[in-house]
Amino acid sequence: MKNVSRRKFLTTSAVVAATPATVLPVAAAPSKELFVHHVYFFLKNKGNEADRTKLMEGLEKLRKVPTIRLSHIGVPAPTNRSVIEKGYDVSWMLFFDNLDEEEIYQKHPIHLKFVEDYSHLWEKVIVYDSIGPAPKKA
Amino acid sequence: MKNVSRRKFLTTSAVVAATPATVLPVAAAPSKELFVHHVYFFLKNKGNEADRTKLMEGLEKLRKVPTIRLSHIGVPAPTNRSVIEKGYDVSWMLFFDNLDEEEIYQKHPIHLKFVEDYSHLWEKVIVYDSIGPAPKKA
Repeated sequence: MKNVSRRKFLTTSAVVAATPATVLPVAAAPSKELFVHHVYFFLKNKGNEADRTKLMEGLEKLRKVPTIRLSHIGVPAPTNRSVIEKGYDVSWMLFFDNLDEEEIYQKHPIHLKFVEDYSHLWEKVIVYDSIGPAPKKA
Repeated sequence: MKNVSRRKFLTTSAVVAATPATVLPVAAAPSKELFVHHVYFFLKNKGNEADRTKLMEGLEKLRKVPTIRLSHIGVPAPTNRSVIEKGYDVSWMLFFDNLDEEEIYQKHPIHLKFVEDYSHLWEKVIVYDSIGPAPKKA
């Protein structure tokens, strides 16, 4: 019964076609909001691989905060154009359903512990918080 | 038959639990890469709502480039902390499967037309390109 319900939910969701490789289907919620929280970390020891690895281990723990809808840990891509900012060491991008859910994340014990345990690694962070309708296309 | 195949694909995908409101299920592809292209637009007429609306109309056309896996159009959220950059007018975030797909986007006629038709609106853009494993959690 549980499986049936899940199947029903999935098949009634609006999944836009994409190749099966890394499909990121997005359920139908055209009028709903999406809050994108994007953090760029600049290490004290810029480019230091050991410190970057440590920070990414911390982020693996941090992504367990339950209000996070999607998380992505990245490093600068090998693209080169004058408008591209490449000075950061780690990209940390999160999706939340709304501002309230992001505020819960900010105050969550897992987040506070992350800051306590790993903030000695970075010199600065730049944060961009953006809101807009939830994606219609995957 | 088509529906059955689609159902089969969906039910065998790894969809992590989330509330039905704005579910963003992510299909199973744990070892696959995700390329995140995040652009922040700064308008010439900073804060001008008409120009922002025009730019967002352009982005609605731009999101039709077929290699885009997911797109999000946003504006600065009402969050306020010293590390938050709020000087931009429009956030444009894209997911691609890999660098090659992003390069196709850069050279795509829809993208070139977008730049031709709308670049008079912005003073500058800041771009962050990040790569990392595809998200495991939605």
